[in-house]
Amino acid sequence: MKDVKASLVEIGKRARRAAAKLSCLTPAAKNQALLAMAEMLGQRADTIKDANARDLEAGRAKGLSAAMLDRLMLDDKRIESMAKALRQVALLEDPVGEVYDMHVRPNGLRVGRMRTPIGVIGIIYESRPNVTVDAGALCIKSGNAVILRGGSEAFHSNQALAAIMDEAAQSSGLPEGSVQLVPTTDRAAVEAMLTLNEYIDLIIPRGGKSLIELVVRTSTIPVIKHYDGNCHIFVDESADFDMAETIIINAKCQRPGVCNAMESLLVHESIASAFLPRVARALQAKGVEIRGDAKTVQLVPEAKPATEEDFRAEFLDLILSVAVVPSLDAAIEWINEYGSHHTDAILTRDHRNAMRFLNEVDSACVFVNCSTRFSDGGEFGMGCEIGISTDKLHARGPMGLRELTTSKFVVFGDGQVRT
Amino acid sequence: MKDVKASLVEIGKRARRAAAKLSCLTPAAKNQALLAMAEMLGQRADTIKDANARDLEAGRAKGLSAAMLDRLMLDDKRIESMAKALRQVALLEDPVGEVYDMHVRPNGLRVGRMRTPIGVIGIIYESRPNVTVDAGALCIKSGNAVILRGGSEAFHSNQALAAIMDEAAQSSGLPEGSVQLVPTTDRAAVEAMLTLNEYIDLIIPRGGKSLIELVVRTSTIPVIKHYDGNCHIFVDESADFDMAETIIINAKCQRPGVCNAMESLLVHESIASAFLPRVARALQAKGVEIRGDAKTVQLVPEAKPATEEDFRAEFLDLILSVAVVPSLDAAIEWINEYGSHHTDAILTRDHRNAMRFLNEVDSACVFVNCSTRFSDGGEFGMGCEIGISTDKLHARGPMGLRELTTSKFVVFGDGQVRT
Repeated sequence: MKDVKASLVEIGKRARRAAAKLSCLTPAAKNQALLAMAEMLGQRADTIKDANARDLEAGRAKGLSAAMLDRLMLDDKRIESMAKALRQVALLEDPVGEVYDMHVRPNGLRVGRMRTPIGVIGIIYESRPNVTVDAGALCIKSGNAVILRGGSEAFHSNQALAAIMDEAAQSSGLPEGSVQLVPTTDRAAVEAMLTLNEYIDLIIPRGGKSLIELVVRTSTIPVIKHYDGNCHIFVDESADFDMAETIIINAKCQRPGVCNAMESLLVHESIASAFLPRVARALQAKGVEIRGDAKTVQLVPEAKPATEEDFRAEFLDLILSVAVVPSLDAAIEWINEYGSHHTDAILTRDHRNAMRFLNEVDSACVFVNCSTRFSDGGEFGMGCEIGISTDKLHARGPMGLRELTTSKFVVFGDGQVRT
Repeated sequence: MKDVKASLVEIGKRARRAAAKLSCLTPAAKNQALLAMAEMLGQRADTIKDANARDLEAGRAKGLSAAMLDRLMLDDKRIESMAKALRQVALLEDPVGEVYDMHVRPNGLRVGRMRTPIGVIGIIYESRPNVTVDAGALCIKSGNAVILRGGSEAFHSNQALAAIMDEAAQSSGLPEGSVQLVPTTDRAAVEAMLTLNEYIDLIIPRGGKSLIELVVRTSTIPVIKHYDGNCHIFVDESADFDMAETIIINAKCQRPGVCNAMESLLVHESIASAFLPRVARALQAKGVEIRGDAKTVQLVPEAKPATEEDFRAEFLDLILSVAVVPSLDAAIEWINEYGSHHTDAILTRDHRNAMRFLNEVDSACVFVNCSTRFSDGGEFGMGCEIGISTDKLHARGPMGLRELTTSKFVVFGDGQVRT
């Protein structure tokens, strides 16, 4: 444990030194490094696949599921797709140095804010090795040094990927320590990393709930976390039924295993008997299992009765909880109570209800008349996403490059003093 | 301890319920409550002074210093000044509900961000009772419920003030629990408050370093903190000597006991012999004690030799550490190493050096050619200040009403689904 801690402190010191230099680089210098990484990934595909083969073999020996092994597996196509992601990040607008809110004070001082990198970012993640490349690229582009700690299943793959990124970075003139991977699968290293307050400014965990809970419990460094997406759609009494059905099918079925898929449907009671049987047929035709409250079960005989847990669940599957609510007020109260404050939508033709929903639902993303599946950095025009924050401080909702920066006040004077 | 914890949980629950309602109020409703509080403070001045007399008496018995007793004391003038602060907060622009960054995506979705209150804010502070009113007002104006925990010396004064604010708030239609004071001086209450993660979203400590360190060590809730202001001024070789002298005298002497006063002066070696003796005379005429490095002591015989600690110190007094540096690079490195990342200024006529200083000094506020004393929410045009963050996440530098809000993504669609 003592050695692990000492090794992490060394990593932290290197990252801190690298961050000071990274923060002053031009966009061109950072982009050149990202493109060099992309090229080297292609050139070293065999090295990556060899390392990956060791992980896959160990995974098979450990009895990992076929799905887990598939998430772990890297082939030429997946390596090319990581390289493509690097090239895309290079094309994004650089947030660092942007000055905003600049205004002139009565005494002539010009006061504004300049976006600057946060410093050193720690990313703790699970099996997919592509996070090593994606998260590393976004941190570099935003001028931050990054310390990566991947899952033990992908250890050799991550080591190969991080070594390539580091070599390409340094050959492009980026400082040593810009991209570092914690070089051990020792779990003590996670704890050591999460208490490196002097050297790490922000921890972003990426993975399942148990990983995030572990990080939150252990970290003394600020954490931005991404908990469940128990996303709701509320069908108001004035909703257009055709539009509502199309949106609901999209939100539930287009990709049910992701955090912005709809998990719970609320229907206004005045339209429940007209709308619910119809949408239930459409959902069931897509293979969706419906778990409903008493009124839903009356109207949809094939529906199973829902439990309290069903209404709080993130199914990540073709399962949907459904409830009939008496009013907009009841829908808002329900969502704020049962939802996970991720993404919730109202389908309505009523302007006042749309605006009340936007104002009163306490979620990171609130939508009118569209699918919850749009809750995504790319779909919001941010070009990329390091995660979706379900926290309220610093960043809320999809996080792009801008959310990996902080700001400083910049003031231009000409001799002003305070009186 | 169990009772204290239970009582804090009740306070937290009330605050959480209040926050849901506060977040939806109009600016007028909140302003009306602030004006009612101001009026009631005036009407109940005698009650406040009676409570304050009990605190003063206990303070005298405890042997508090005259300065401490003065900070504690409330008279008609100070009560009127608290009422005035309330009226000023009522006049500020309401940040809640502002929509920004709204743009149209290729599919016609309109994606923007809406400022919303954070929820429940906990303020932990020391002796000055006016913080009860100031901080309470800023939280209410920004739509947040507030839980206040003041210093034990001001307990009765704070109770009287908080009771008046609560009564005025409720009589103006604000929800019960909008403004609450922890009703005990038991220190266990602080610990209980700092672990109320379910009910408090953000902790802001206001006070000396030991209070802030205690809060950071204990809190499992996010904290935005305000550490030292070891503010630097670097006099570059091209600086205008007259302007530099005026700014330096202002930054050091205008109000030496505050966090944005200059504590350390760096002078470029090429002008040190011409400038340092001159500015030293001006500083010494104002009663400033100079503690210098070897070169400074050579040039300013009255200067005492500075220790390493002097260069890291926040004196809050008429004491100044002075060092001669060989270059801009050395000045930047010095400030990033010895400074406290609060506010640092360069005095120069060289454009490139000014811009490099702004980009490379890693502080919340970086200034060109003006006094560090401008580092203040009011001076920056924010209208008020809940504190100055020396953190990087969520808020950095002076924090106004906007920094007491978060945002949500709002999306207006017309039937869009994801393909």
